[in-house]
Amino acid sequence: MKNHLLSINDLTKEDVLSIISTSAELEKITEGPTKKLPTLRGRTIVNLFFEDSTRTRISFETAAKRLSADVINFSAKGSSVSKGESLKDTAQTLQAMGADAVVIRHGSSGAAQRLADSGWISATVINAGDGTHEHPTQALLDAFTIAKRFPERKADFTGLRIAIVGDILHSRVARSNVLLLTKLGAQVTLVAPPTLLPVGVESWPVRISYELDSELEQFDVVMMLRIQLERMTNFYFPNEREYSRRYGLNEDRLLRMKKEAIVMHPGPMNRGLEISAASADSSRSVIVDQVGNGVLTRMAVLYLLLGGATLGEVS
Amino acid sequence: MKNHLLSINDLTKEDVLSIISTSAELEKITEGPTKKLPTLRGRTIVNLFFEDSTRTRISFETAAKRLSADVINFSAKGSSVSKGESLKDTAQTLQAMGADAVVIRHGSSGAAQRLADSGWISATVINAGDGTHEHPTQALLDAFTIAKRFPERKADFTGLRIAIVGDILHSRVARSNVLLLTKLGAQVTLVAPPTLLPVGVESWPVRISYELDSELEQFDVVMMLRIQLERMTNFYFPNEREYSRRYGLNEDRLLRMKKEAIVMHPGPMNRGLEISAASADSSRSVIVDQVGNGVLTRMAVLYLLLGGATLGEVS
Amino acid sequence: MKNHLLSINDLTKEDVLSIISTSAELEKITEGPTKKLPTLRGRTIVNLFFEDSTRTRISFETAAKRLSADVINFSAKGSSVSKGESLKDTAQTLQAMGADAVVIRHGSSGAAQRLADSGWISATVINAGDGTHEHPTQALLDAFTIAKRFPERKADFTGLRIAIVGDILHSRVARSNVLLLTKLGAQVTLVAPPTLLPVGVESWPVRISYELDSELEQFDVVMMLRIQLERMTNFYFPNEREYSRRYGLNEDRLLRMKKEAIVMHPGPMNRGLEISAASADSSRSVIVDQVGNGVLTRMAVLYLLLGGATLGEVS
Repeated sequence: MKNHLLSINDLTKEDVLSIISTSAELEKITEGPTKKLPTLRGRTIVNLFFEDSTRTRISFETAAKRLSADVINFSAKGSSVSKGESLKDTAQTLQAMGADAVVIRHGSSGAAQRLADSGWISATVINAGDGTHEHPTQALLDAFTIAKRFPERKADFTGLRIAIVGDILHSRVARSNVLLLTKLGAQVTLVAPPTLLPVGVESWPVRISYELDSELEQFDVVMMLRIQLERMTNFYFPNEREYSRRYGLNEDRLLRMKKEAIVMHPGPMNRGLEISAASADSSRSVIVDQVGNGVLTRMAVLYLLLGGATLGEVS
Repeated sequence: MKNHLLSINDLTKEDVLSIISTSAELEKITEGPTKKLPTLRGRTIVNLFFEDSTRTRISFETAAKRLSADVINFSAKGSSVSKGESLKDTAQTLQAMGADAVVIRHGSSGAAQRLADSGWISATVINAGDGTHEHPTQALLDAFTIAKRFPERKADFTGLRIAIVGDILHSRVARSNVLLLTKLGAQVTLVAPPTLLPVGVESWPVRISYELDSELEQFDVVMMLRIQLERMTNFYFPNEREYSRRYGLNEDRLLRMKKEAIVMHPGPMNRGLEISAASADSSRSVIVDQVGNGVLTRMAVLYLLLGGATLGEVS
Repeated sequence: MKNHLLSINDLTKEDVLSIISTSAELEKITEGPTKKLPTLRGRTIVNLFFEDSTRTRISFETAAKRLSADVINFSAKGSSVSKGESLKDTAQTLQAMGADAVVIRHGSSGAAQRLADSGWISATVINAGDGTHEHPTQALLDAFTIAKRFPERKADFTGLRIAIVGDILHSRVARSNVLLLTKLGAQVTLVAPPTLLPVGVESWPVRISYELDSELEQFDVVMMLRIQLERMTNFYFPNEREYSRRYGLNEDRLLRMKKEAIVMHPGPMNRGLEISAASADSSRSVIVDQVGNGVLTRMAVLYLLLGGATLGEVS
């Protein structure tokens, strides 16, 4: 495994399988009365967040603390960054303070890569979302969630049909998932209006559909993306009701899904817009599981990147 | 003791006495060189604050850390909550991340109850103030503070005369204290202008007075409430000076109080408005003690709700 | 050593040498696989920040956590302070909550002193910058950095020529450094336009120069100060380009410096304004070292003020 986690492309299939199995192992180990392991005692993880994201920040913070690391939250708002400090100087500052890992969330695609490639720091860099580019730990936790729901597959997704529905154009979650799920063998279909698909999507290893209804019965996994309300303008889509009618996961559609098919959403949801409350809370939904799996996956990533030891040494 | 602490009504008199004696025990145990106990090692406490309240947040944070718990601060500002996420989804997220207890501060009365009753989470819910409804740990720390100042009573407040003075209408502190102090036997008098008393106050187990002067000599405890300056409009009260003249605790009034009577305030104070600086700093004042007792009381609550062990096991 | 660290004037020369040697000792001890010492386990350090300063806050937070202390971050924004609470009540609150040390950053000169002298708290007070007055730990980390670069001097700076360049008028960093560096024997020259020098500077134990070029070849250390862009008005200085031309550290000037001379900056830098990117990144620059030394120096200060033990007991 490489030193950083910037993109799903940094991971071999073996790396992915190792993260999934480590997550599963950590789940077992931490089921008991104590949820805390001494693995990263004395290490410092910095959450460097240029965009607000309480969910992702506390997921990483929880993961790091369960491994006994110290966590420093660095929100760029009101920091010297807002006084014009460069990413370079911020990075060198964190490095000099002794950060062992920097978890970075940034509004610009490529920011995490730039941080890691710059030579500014030797700390491990973990991409927690960069612009519309990637959010690799989200895809890893999604894969772990699917693997748990289809245990007989042992994380081999060959032949599994997965729909990713919604605003693909702006979604780093979609990008990371396409890379990861196809790496594990899944057949991915992107379902979106043409205005919400990126240029060049024809060259992605996916199928494209402009409507949700036609193939709904065939999907094993339906992953709904969050609609950014501020993008619901004429340019991308007429209005919320029309979007919901054509691409929202409502109860009609829920009933038409395959018997064992599951519903996913990276959160936070707009209930009633891209997903109905009944769909979000149905027995098909693994949305809450995704959150818990997120902590486990991030523990696994931190452990594998920083711990360096083999899994057996955890226990 | 129930699983949650939402209202003083959740507590039997025995529960209250147990919290007070546990607080006292914790004070003794933590007087030595180490103020930290291993009791909640590996547990995660989330401070879920929808309203700013640095004092209450750091009191709970300090209490949790002294018991060796991990603390995650979740401020709703700038979080997915401000992007429209429902309380339900926030709750399920915290649950899935493994929160053992959620300390919630919310602007809506009943929010803590809703969180606990919903079935959304199995974590212990502690109400740190919900709208104008309740703030039970504030009342508990106030009772502990009174108990310490009248030690011969052994937390039996029968016959003790306690005045709560000020904006009763909007005060969750007043509501929780009325419930708790009367449960312990005290005779509570609410002192306020008619505009700052809630509808239906006649049915509360209290005496009502529209002026502070008439009975001042009879009170053993005078608890001043904070005036919210933004409410000092014609609707509720003419102006600050008039309020201060009629309901403020000044030195004249301080001198007229019973010899052993004490002055309380939940903080933060408007010195010179509801309480004069001399009153706040006088030997009658236990305002600073309330803060320290707040940490001990919250330790006791966390310990009793999460630890489940009997007190003897603390040491 | 006194109980507090408010000003460099609180420290004897022996105190300073003790802080420098303790910092060096801590650097050795924490070079190994574990960077964490149990020294302050069970102690609580409060970061009381009335001004945003992410860098200084996380430097103290990292230092405290490496010594195993609990850290409570109290940002005055959105706290009861913004609701009008006095410094006195905030201080008494922190004291009552059991703070062992309060690290205070405040916009008013003298705020740290007032906190310490008031009798409001018995906790150790550490000044992390008060108005335009002092920032003693910055000067200490600067002295430690210089001492490391000139090891043969063993922290005796007699005869060392140090320039402090820029906005002396508003700089607490400059004030603390003048006091500290002259205490260690250095000859300090302040280089600034007359408008950016404080009234009464003639009585300081320093040399004054209105231009950087004339004596550049003689300095062993050139410490550039940050220019506050909002002060670049006609009143203080014509414009940025003119400032940069006359007082900025560019490559021409860098080349003219003594062979072994070093470049310092307290950060965050305005690259291209008071210092060119090439100067900031040159081999003369110890700017990144200053950050790491900052954590070590703050560990030493916390250790000496709170630990009370002699250095040998660290290991």
